[in-house]
Amino acid sequence: MTNDDLSIQQRLYPDVRCFGCGHANDKGLRLRSFPGSDGVVTATFTPWPEHDNGVGYLNGGIICTVLDCHSAAAVLWEAEQRGWPPLPGAALAYVTAGLQVRYLRPSPLDESVELRGWVTDAGEAEMTAEVELVWDGKTRAAATAHWKRWRPR
Amino acid sequence: MTNDDLSIQQRLYPDVRCFGCGHANDKGLRLRSFPGSDGVVTATFTPWPEHDNGVGYLNGGIICTVLDCHSAAAVLWEAEQRGWPPLPGAALAYVTAGLQVRYLRPSPLDESVELRGWVTDAGEAEMTAEVELVWDGKTRAAATAHWKRWRPR
Repeated sequence: MTNDDLSIQQRLYPDVRCFGCGHANDKGLRLRSFPGSDGVVTATFTPWPEHDNGVGYLNGGIICTVLDCHSAAAVLWEAEQRGWPPLPGAALAYVTAGLQVRYLRPSPLDESVELRGWVTDAGEAEMTAEVELVWDGKTRAAATAHWKRWRPR
Repeated sequence: MTNDDLSIQQRLYPDVRCFGCGHANDKGLRLRSFPGSDGVVTATFTPWPEHDNGVGYLNGGIICTVLDCHSAAAVLWEAEQRGWPPLPGAALAYVTAGLQVRYLRPSPLDESVELRGWVTDAGEAEMTAEVELVWDGKTRAAATAHWKRWRPR
């Protein structure tokens, strides 16, 4: 396996225990996101049977979880490209400040879905990313994620 | 146990398998929310160890999950009070259309937190609820949730 085969999470923050994307959390979702040459970060997510929304589709909270964590990958990869590493005492370069989620269509529970994310506004103090969950060619949910530079006090 | 001891989830939709609040999902969070005499719906949520955000606090996606599901309880309880039951063919009276989450302060991973929710705008076609996650007297995260009447096609 070369470095290029490693996901953004495994390469930039392999030791975090984040429920959504920490590869050191063996009970988490362990999302794997990859940068594309077009600037879009992509991932494939396969729901677990318990991720039901109550009526047989993918749960909205789990949708938020993967959109939030996928936006993290897009933002932290952008930060790496721009030379904005974690500040001394911070585990990550940025922290989430807000997430605005639009639920557009039901998303299946028993199929893998695609995540797409890209940074729309990048400043060292804060970044904004758009992320979407796509299945069968249609966007099922989308979110705008706001991230702020993590400045340890 | 009297009917008053049952949570909104257990009384109104006991058989759903929602990851966040379905009491028929034995691998879910099984949120229990209760209406108060002041119109505020409350719940206590105890995170699991794996709900880490990667740096020792409660994960943002799990925060979204409990805020979303807690807003469901507030909305579906309001719908019951107003006589807007699920329409024929729908498992629930309303479905989430959007969730705008503000992450304000870190929330602990190893303590129980309080959820508060109330409907701010109720029409039969759609409802809006405010929900917040509170610990140690401070709001850690807050969200505005938009719900739409579930009209089976």
